[in-house]
Amino acid sequence: MEKPVKVGLLGLGVVGTGVLEILADHQEKIEKSIGCPLTVAKALVRPTEDKENLAKKYNLQLVHELTDIIEDPEIDIVVEVMGRIEPAKTFISEALKAGKHVVTANKDLLAQHGSELASLAHEQKRNLYYEASVAGGIPILRTIANSLAADDIQEVLGIVNGTTNYMLTKMVTEQMDYDTALKQAQELGFAESDPTNDVDGIDAAYKMVILSKFAFGMTITMDQVKVKGIRGLSGKDVTAADQLGYTVKLIGSTVKKNGSIAAEVGPVLVPSDHPLASIHNEFNAVFVKSSGIGESMYYGPGAGSRPTATSIVADLMTIVNKIQLGTIGHRFSEYTQPTQLTPPEEIVSKYFLSLKMPDETGQFLQLAEIMANAGAGLEQVVQEKATVENARVVVITHKMSETTMSQIQKDIAEKTNFELLSTMKVMGE
Amino acid sequence: MEKPVKVGLLGLGVVGTGVLEILADHQEKIEKSIGCPLTVAKALVRPTEDKENLAKKYNLQLVHELTDIIEDPEIDIVVEVMGRIEPAKTFISEALKAGKHVVTANKDLLAQHGSELASLAHEQKRNLYYEASVAGGIPILRTIANSLAADDIQEVLGIVNGTTNYMLTKMVTEQMDYDTALKQAQELGFAESDPTNDVDGIDAAYKMVILSKFAFGMTITMDQVKVKGIRGLSGKDVTAADQLGYTVKLIGSTVKKNGSIAAEVGPVLVPSDHPLASIHNEFNAVFVKSSGIGESMYYGPGAGSRPTATSIVADLMTIVNKIQLGTIGHRFSEYTQPTQLTPPEEIVSKYFLSLKMPDETGQFLQLAEIMANAGAGLEQVVQEKATVENARVVVITHKMSETTMSQIQKDIAEKTNFELLSTMKVMGE
Ligand SMILES: NC(=O)c1ccc[n+]([C@@H]2O[C@H](COP(=O)([O-])OP(=O)(O)OC[C@H]3O[C@@H](n4cnc5c(N)ncnc54)[C@H](OP(=O)(O)O)[C@@H]3O)[C@@H](O)[C@H]2O)c1
Ligand SMILES: NC(=O)c1ccc[n+]([C@@H]2O[C@H](COP(=O)([O-])OP(=O)(O)OC[C@H]3O[C@@H](n4cnc5c(N)ncnc54)[C@H](OP(=O)(O)O)[C@@H]3O)[C@@H](O)[C@H]2O)c1
Repeated sequence: MEKPVKVGLLGLGVVGTGVLEILADHQEKIEKSIGCPLTVAKALVRPTEDKENLAKKYNLQLVHELTDIIEDPEIDIVVEVMGRIEPAKTFISEALKAGKHVVTANKDLLAQHGSELASLAHEQKRNLYYEASVAGGIPILRTIANSLAADDIQEVLGIVNGTTNYMLTKMVTEQMDYDTALKQAQELGFAESDPTNDVDGIDAAYKMVILSKFAFGMTITMDQVKVKGIRGLSGKDVTAADQLGYTVKLIGSTVKKNGSIAAEVGPVLVPSDHPLASIHNEFNAVFVKSSGIGESMYYGPGAGSRPTATSIVADLMTIVNKIQLGTIGHRFSEYTQPTQLTPPEEIVSKYFLSLKMPDETGQFLQLAEIMANAGAGLEQVVQEKATVENARVVVITHKMSETTMSQIQKDIAEKTNFELLSTMKVMGE
Repeated sequence: MEKPVKVGLLGLGVVGTGVLEILADHQEKIEKSIGCPLTVAKALVRPTEDKENLAKKYNLQLVHELTDIIEDPEIDIVVEVMGRIEPAKTFISEALKAGKHVVTANKDLLAQHGSELASLAHEQKRNLYYEASVAGGIPILRTIANSLAADDIQEVLGIVNGTTNYMLTKMVTEQMDYDTALKQAQELGFAESDPTNDVDGIDAAYKMVILSKFAFGMTITMDQVKVKGIRGLSGKDVTAADQLGYTVKLIGSTVKKNGSIAAEVGPVLVPSDHPLASIHNEFNAVFVKSSGIGESMYYGPGAGSRPTATSIVADLMTIVNKIQLGTIGHRFSEYTQPTQLTPPEEIVSKYFLSLKMPDETGQFLQLAEIMANAGAGLEQVVQEKATVENARVVVITHKMSETTMSQIQKDIAEKTNFELLSTMKVMGE
């Protein structure tokens, strides 16, 4: 048995504690697999935090200065699980410069400064892994980097935010309204007290930036992801979609077309027999369409202390293997392509529109004319009386481009007195 | 750019042709990823086969003798896609002895002689990979070996045979009977003219042997897998299960309990809201329950030329990486534990029983007594009139051991004049 590999933890919150648990619970298997013990020697905590019990239980030393970890020659790998951009970014950079390998779960940081950190790691001939940053316990990054290396990926569609998927599941299966669903998610600890990042799609967008890099080798920035959340989504629309054979899901997508990609987050009508439609509650799933395999999907918990920590420990074991073999310094994803974005006129999809219109003859004709002028066809129409004066009309269009859709929205605003309650993309041919 | 890595193919059938396609179609990405071209230089075919057009199209040499491939110093890796045990086993052994790395999709061979071949590869310091042998296009073996290395797996449950899943889907969703479903699967090319290996669960059992090794490090033999197929499964049972909230699936399982494992294949009632219940048609999925991640599932095509070939090419790329890094000779799965089988009295599950009994008073009491004597409880009961004289009774029991179930079967046979039409395990707590 070789001497133990020692790890320094930055942050001892939900995920950090999970790392201690997984390393302790699966100690024997881990040791057998990598041929040596793997232990956390030190953890950086705030002077104000009381983590003495944890430290005693897992036999580690609490420190308050980064240097206590990165200047310790016994420590080979640093795990960053503090969250937020700073000081995490500085700490990771310092650790790499001090010759440590780094594992992190910090999606915000990776989505915004991933290339910079990956380049620094490469320069320093150190490894930087972050499997846990996308879909927590689902090993999707490693699968794309290794198993799908032989494949040509066309689309990655993900339910990558557990909070909103929990809320949508309640809205679909229990006809809960948005506010009640959010409240319940908060009570269960899935949603934070400020749910902005989740419900506005920002968290999912971080993950699509990282997935775009792995799937297509392209580096995009957050402002290149078109983001729409589910804030205020109407229960009526969810029910209407259900009646038309669709389940509303918050889908993060990154799609390649003629060598360019489009990354997006938004509520989407998913056909009820599509594998993504049956992903319930807080679970996540990533669906991949590729030329070789065809359709594959990877399902599991997108968050949580132990699942996320398991991905982190798998990263740690990969690094230990590479240290032992002397093959360190390769990028987590080596695949690189020049970034090309698909222009809006080439991004096509079916659309769901929900409208309120005066309940008078000729109104629907007006909508049909606007659609026809834009060259857009209608696939399904449902009209129902909303009040004495108003009718609620829900339509699903044939495929059209984003540019056409913008024109239609503009025409509805300018030429009619309809209220366009919502628009969502619809998955399918 | 380094010089090309050359591959020798043994067999040029469905999967062999797929390998040529994937290597050609994804040439650029593959080359970028491994830093050199990867090409098939020679393919072994029978003298009677006419594969000249393929050879011309993909610029390779057809040969009729194994030595033409394994004595060629330019060839580094041999891909075996001939199928069956012999001569595949001899050819793979010869290739390893000649210093070639080997990739194969041959589940029959691996299930029966996998350890022997893995040891030979290890001795020869060569790699032997076989991702494609389980669930075709789903990268399940690599996921277990790498990403789940940090986890402690408790159960692996798989829909790992596409033919039977196609048939069961038709039986459930279109109330097709067994023979019609089989005929349709054959017409669509999912089932072979002799469907024995599929419908009797043998193909699924091969895969459970391989999965048991990856998940638990234990080597079991085919006769240690309890195998039951779906041959002659009654449409009535499928419908009854459906009404009780279950979907019948052919499930391959390998389950760890107190350090011992039980591997099994058989039709199982899966709760309709379980992720495995929504795996339709010829698709496969492997569901893993583990201490760290919790529940995860890997879904995709279980067979087919291109999906299977994509897994093979991923294996090839892994080997090329290892050749370049000089880190060859590690086992595909390094995890090894002494094999321990769970005794039948410790294997517990709920059961579905379907019985025909005379439609007279007191009959059901008899069944209740037998169950009570065995210490087994009833959870759900459905009774319907089958004919004037007979009633059809379907029950779902509480959890009990296999030993208890055997006792109940024996008692029903000896003490009643019921006909026990079928028994199936039921998934759930
Ligand atoms: N939770 C999940 O399920 C999950 C899943 C995937 C990825 N992640 C990612 O994992 C990371 C950690 O998440 P978490 O849920 O474990 O968060 P958490 O429970 O808030 O833990 C973070 C810990 O780090 C501490 N910390 C922050 N800045 C520090 C500093 N400068 N010095 C010392 N300690 C500091 C925090 O202390 P204070 O509370 O005092 O600030 C807190 O104890 C985040 O990047 C998150 O996005 C989490
Ligand atoms: N098809 C799938 O979707 C799939 C999925 C997963 C795994 N696999 C596995 O992949 C392997 C290949 O399957 P496949 O579907 O490609 O089978 P296949 O279409 O029958 O191809 C096998 C080819 O190898 C040839 N062959 C057999 N013995 C040979 C010998 N001694 N010398 C030269 N050529 C020989 C066969 O010729 P003859 O026809 O003349 O015998 C045939 O052309 C099998 O182990 C199978 O279990 C297949």
